[in-house]
Amino acid sequence: MTLLCADTVVCDAETVVEDGAVVVDGDRIAAVGDREDLREQYPDHERVESDLLAPGLVGGHVHSVQSLGRGIADDEELLDWLFDHVLPMEASMGPEEMRAAADLAYLELVESGTTTAVDHLSVSHAEQAFEAAGDSGVRALMGKVLMDRDSPEGLLEDTEEALAETEELIREFDGAHDGRIRYAVTPRFAVSCTEACLRGCRELADEYGVRIHTHASENRGEIEAVKENTGKRNVHWLDEVGLTGEDVVLAHCVWTDESEREMLAETGTHVTHCPSSNMKLASGVAPVTDYLDRGINVALGNDGPPCNNTLDAFTEMRQASLLGKVSDLDPTTLPARTVFEMATRNGAMAAGFDDVGKLREGWRADVVGLATDNARSTPIHDPYSHLVFAAHGDDVSLTMVDGEVLYRDGEHVRMDDAAVRERAREFADGY
Amino acid sequence: MTLLCADTVVCDAETVVEDGAVVVDGDRIAAVGDREDLREQYPDHERVESDLLAPGLVGGHVHSVQSLGRGIADDEELLDWLFDHVLPMEASMGPEEMRAAADLAYLELVESGTTTAVDHLSVSHAEQAFEAAGDSGVRALMGKVLMDRDSPEGLLEDTEEALAETEELIREFDGAHDGRIRYAVTPRFAVSCTEACLRGCRELADEYGVRIHTHASENRGEIEAVKENTGKRNVHWLDEVGLTGEDVVLAHCVWTDESEREMLAETGTHVTHCPSSNMKLASGVAPVTDYLDRGINVALGNDGPPCNNTLDAFTEMRQASLLGKVSDLDPTTLPARTVFEMATRNGAMAAGFDDVGKLREGWRADVVGLATDNARSTPIHDPYSHLVFAAHGDDVSLTMVDGEVLYRDGEHVRMDDAAVRERAREFADGY
Repeated sequence: MTLLCADTVVCDAETVVEDGAVVVDGDRIAAVGDREDLREQYPDHERVESDLLAPGLVGGHVHSVQSLGRGIADDEELLDWLFDHVLPMEASMGPEEMRAAADLAYLELVESGTTTAVDHLSVSHAEQAFEAAGDSGVRALMGKVLMDRDSPEGLLEDTEEALAETEELIREFDGAHDGRIRYAVTPRFAVSCTEACLRGCRELADEYGVRIHTHASENRGEIEAVKENTGKRNVHWLDEVGLTGEDVVLAHCVWTDESEREMLAETGTHVTHCPSSNMKLASGVAPVTDYLDRGINVALGNDGPPCNNTLDAFTEMRQASLLGKVSDLDPTTLPARTVFEMATRNGAMAAGFDDVGKLREGWRADVVGLATDNARSTPIHDPYSHLVFAAHGDDVSLTMVDGEVLYRDGEHVRMDDAAVRERAREFADGY
Repeated sequence: MTLLCADTVVCDAETVVEDGAVVVDGDRIAAVGDREDLREQYPDHERVESDLLAPGLVGGHVHSVQSLGRGIADDEELLDWLFDHVLPMEASMGPEEMRAAADLAYLELVESGTTTAVDHLSVSHAEQAFEAAGDSGVRALMGKVLMDRDSPEGLLEDTEEALAETEELIREFDGAHDGRIRYAVTPRFAVSCTEACLRGCRELADEYGVRIHTHASENRGEIEAVKENTGKRNVHWLDEVGLTGEDVVLAHCVWTDESEREMLAETGTHVTHCPSSNMKLASGVAPVTDYLDRGINVALGNDGPPCNNTLDAFTEMRQASLLGKVSDLDPTTLPARTVFEMATRNGAMAAGFDDVGKLREGWRADVVGLATDNARSTPIHDPYSHLVFAAHGDDVSLTMVDGEVLYRDGEHVRMDDAAVRERAREFADGY
């Protein structure tokens, strides 16, 4: 057992323990409480001191395999960005490159305090990313992408083969790496998937009891294309082919109408809000407050390095709150505790990890420690304010998943960080 | 002389030298060029290696004395924020507290790479902030605030006394600390200043050849109040009383109409855009692209810790670009080079420092070095993209002003950082 001790322990969006401790027993939290009491109760166990402890953050929508494309296509029109840069990059990547990209992404996630990722891969070499995530120790819901229509060369797949490959990958990776890895069936988006493909995704999800993760209604061109192809609004179409429900995570949902929002709420579909990505690609502003008011579970995501350009979940909390406030012209919109919950418990619920996202007895020991010995972290009047508006991934001094330390005081335990960066640079030099 | 060497030297918004060096001679840059060439030319001089060098960043609108209020009033209505929290905090602060607050702010600026600040103080104890800035080594344009109407108790001043105190402070501090400190006459905003006060500010600026720095048209309530008091749009009123021109810096300028924008352009008035603050306080979105298209010089500012909550200029570059893109629904808006220029050269021009904001022979040696040995900084396809979209103040490994190293590899040279933080926490505990 290990005692994680801190001046401030943020257990969840409601509870803070000052001078607290978290007792970790194996992969679970055995107790959360007063530091002195727990030290007396567990006198002979290892102690790890942090300034502040919080649940590990959840990246509710990530593209790990795009990380070598950080900065390749800034300040560009969305369609140019996607079809001239990002998709050709994915199409050109071999297995080693895919592994290098995923390693880099998981390295960044670990060192900036994300302990669970919902990862949207590419059509090929998905096994490389599964191994990268598994080896990193991060908890992840992830899946190979399916694209069987209106897709560029090198990515366009045969429907049956794409579904068959998905089924093989589910069998191989769902529950792998001590259960930290779970499979999500991952069609790219309605525009690039046939009806047969989307219905096939639902069948696989039902057959294997895995989740579905896709993009939805990110930009106006997309919803127009879906309307043209199907005659329907995008969420109506997704609902018709089985891609709504409590096991579905839809990234973005910027452009939805009243009827679609009702449908998301009624079906219990999860939404991942990606504020930086939506800003940088000029996609628009998702109606997050409205979603939350309807009881829709909204997580937060960084999206990929070509459209963010970081995977820092702290940046995304801040961005979600600030973007919400200015777009509503209401400074009370999306207060700190709300976005903190989106980035922790809501994300874990979207990803289907029932006992993740809070520091609570019996739950998974997914924990981050933060250092606060810098000017930016002084003073701290309210820990939620600090975590959301002032903290940054660079403050992370401890990253723990399932009770295992992955990163501490700048040192990676599992990963050779210099080697990962070097390999990433070698591949990226060709871009 | 010192050779600052780096894999990448970003000289300004146009010029990058790979494997470059900057030769520093006293407070000036003696040469910028190829690393090997300059090493041969200056073989016996000290070398400082960085991963990336850039001009020091310019914080075009800062409230250093508000730093103890970081996080005291998040997620609140603007008027509650201002009148229930921020102004009472300022009114209650004694000289030692003011010094502690300013020290903390300058500590944060130094460790996050801001080498020039445009600082809006409070009505009292301005000398404390002048000394804090001077002792920190940061270049600053700063001034005591004037408030002589519609202001809360403890801040409301007599017009003549406020102007007289301003004049004394100009005489004492303009050009102090080897010229790094310059005075700006700083009325709070039109709402809290009488016509006599504003006209008196212009007279002092003209008499002493110093600049004017104030808030303008930040929110709708403010422009309504000015309209009620004067019958005019805010910028028209400011122009009438002498508060436009090439020596004037107006922070925010969110709510301006066509005629006001023309007036800003015609008069050569500088504007400081504060995107995070405008988002967090839900003030609105300043029409930055329109200002730039008209040839208005637009700088970037973090505003104060109660409304940001950091003083990290990198965060503000990213925010300016992302907010511009989403509000224009155009991903080409405010590209990386443009916001980099806003945060460097444009800021220096606004602050009236003619030879600051670029790494150029003969100019002031205000330089930042960045470390790039983390996952977030890998790969770097384009240094401007990196600086704006991925870098963070925590990456700063070197802060130099006038050729003097203020911060290097996590160590402050002039300031006792632990003592500054401790003192700040002691005062802030009472908030």
